[in-house]
Amino acid sequence: MSASARPRDTAPGKAEDALSALTALVRDDLEACNRVIIERMQSEVALIPQLAAHIVAAGGKRLRPLLTLAAARLCGYRGQRHIGLAACVEFIHTATLLHDDVVDESALRRGQASANALFGNKPSVLVGDFLFSRAFQLMTADGSLEVLRILSDASAIIAEGEVLQLMTQNDTSTTEAQYLQVIEGKTAALFAAATEVGAVVAEQPPAAQARLRAFGMALGVAFQLVDDALDYSADQAALGKTVGDDFREGKITLPVLLAFARGDEAERAFWRRTLEEREQTEADLAEAQALMRRHGALADTIARARLYGDQAQAALAPFPDGPEKRALSAVVEFCIERAR
Amino acid sequence: MSASARPRDTAPGKAEDALSALTALVRDDLEACNRVIIERMQSEVALIPQLAAHIVAAGGKRLRPLLTLAAARLCGYRGQRHIGLAACVEFIHTATLLHDDVVDESALRRGQASANALFGNKPSVLVGDFLFSRAFQLMTADGSLEVLRILSDASAIIAEGEVLQLMTQNDTSTTEAQYLQVIEGKTAALFAAATEVGAVVAEQPPAAQARLRAFGMALGVAFQLVDDALDYSADQAALGKTVGDDFREGKITLPVLLAFARGDEAERAFWRRTLEEREQTEADLAEAQALMRRHGALADTIARARLYGDQAQAALAPFPDGPEKRALSAVVEFCIERAR
Repeated sequence: MSASARPRDTAPGKAEDALSALTALVRDDLEACNRVIIERMQSEVALIPQLAAHIVAAGGKRLRPLLTLAAARLCGYRGQRHIGLAACVEFIHTATLLHDDVVDESALRRGQASANALFGNKPSVLVGDFLFSRAFQLMTADGSLEVLRILSDASAIIAEGEVLQLMTQNDTSTTEAQYLQVIEGKTAALFAAATEVGAVVAEQPPAAQARLRAFGMALGVAFQLVDDALDYSADQAALGKTVGDDFREGKITLPVLLAFARGDEAERAFWRRTLEEREQTEADLAEAQALMRRHGALADTIARARLYGDQAQAALAPFPDGPEKRALSAVVEFCIERAR
Repeated sequence: MSASARPRDTAPGKAEDALSALTALVRDDLEACNRVIIERMQSEVALIPQLAAHIVAAGGKRLRPLLTLAAARLCGYRGQRHIGLAACVEFIHTATLLHDDVVDESALRRGQASANALFGNKPSVLVGDFLFSRAFQLMTADGSLEVLRILSDASAIIAEGEVLQLMTQNDTSTTEAQYLQVIEGKTAALFAAATEVGAVVAEQPPAAQARLRAFGMALGVAFQLVDDALDYSADQAALGKTVGDDFREGKITLPVLLAFARGDEAERAFWRRTLEEREQTEADLAEAQALMRRHGALADTIARARLYGDQAQAALAPFPDGPEKRALSAVVEFCIERAR
């Protein structure tokens, strides 16, 4: 998946304040988590920490481990297990990023040269496998079969979502249901697992665990919807992201599906030529953006994200008020406000 | 890794009788294991079972799961857990094969078109991830943290071995110690885990568990040593394998290291040109084989394999006599006799 296709956590802007607040709230936990990440990505095979450092240590705001840390604290957890498990979540995320970049032949990740561009595809595949294995070693050391179930299930669903994305790529007959299955798999499943694990270590009753899982799932879908809109609308200078990656790769995202469904025959021919046959000229991205504006495709994608954001807030509502709840609620807004 | 670089289980020949005997001994278990494999490689994402069937269902003699099944029975186990765990071992093996073929850009696997050649690199990476995740789902359902530890450790060591192999590729200054670390990682670690898991389900004391682990490790090293010799010496028609894959890829294996160390300066220049600079002509493979014969490099590689085979037999010796012990002992011979 391209840098555009999975939510990047690096977009700066005013909405970032929400993420900064969450980060500040669990700063000690996050620093401990980062220490586990650095320690556990070591290997006597030197290329592994070199490549892992490029993607693990350098990039990202650690959104997914932050969710695990904050969810555990929200549930009143006062132990240390959530720290190692947050590192597991980040390792799984990092492994999928490495494999995505190979799959997408991406040259950029988080605005920097991707690992596969710098080190080659081969080490990227294998170091991804290593980090994935490390995640399961860490979980095994933690010793909770419930956590192992949640994160092994999430890993399988992520892979299924990625394969489904490949199958729907360049196919304008993709349905919205299939698109939703793709983004629930490739993005939201790990958000859901990240928050659920926080409830599990805090030994919450099943209802609270299910609510935190639902929170993560809805948040993840909202996040990916906004990301797919940003791929056609981002202020490249402000967000430090490339616009048009999905278009160039022929990814079928909701903005495309809405514009395609609402377009006339000539417009559908445009989408088929550019996304299915991948015959694109310099002017085509601007034309795609114009068609999306004409049909309100980006605005409606963001509106859809808001609905999922509301679901996330509703799942959070029954938890007792406090700084963690407010910070998690603000993260939902952060995910959607990125689109401004 | 090429078809040549990891032991292929499909080589026919007289030594195969040993494997047939083992297969016959645990036939019901193996059939049950195959049913688990078929059932658990399913997904509603159609490309996953399609691609998985190509590699999981079609190929191989299931040597690694056979080791788990036979080891459990050797230890007197009478339950059913070893069946699902043997499937885990095969899933991990299959996932690494899919990723190896991407890494090596292999066109062939077990004499047939490789999955990456047929389906493309992208699905091969992602279906590998899916099968790897499935393995951990199955282990989690089994519920033994000891098994999870053994197989997550093995997975990390496999990845390390593969990365180290990449780092030593095309480097004639690779040491024998590094070569041994590569093959212990990429091949023997999973053999060791496969046999150790059999002891664990049978609730053997630590000493017996360690012996079965040592058995698998020595067997795996012997197997890979023979494989590396066969890559320069196999009877292509009889074994159905390509000779010279390792040479063409510039893999640094023991036959190369021995011939290099024993060669004069002109010979070392030959190895550097063909394996480091990868400037090869049609006649170079025959020249490489001639140099290996001159220096006894293949015979000494097989002799080394015999030493590891003896270690495997010694590890097996304390177990009570019976059909399982005899079959496992014969498998050691099978691994070495392939070189005849």
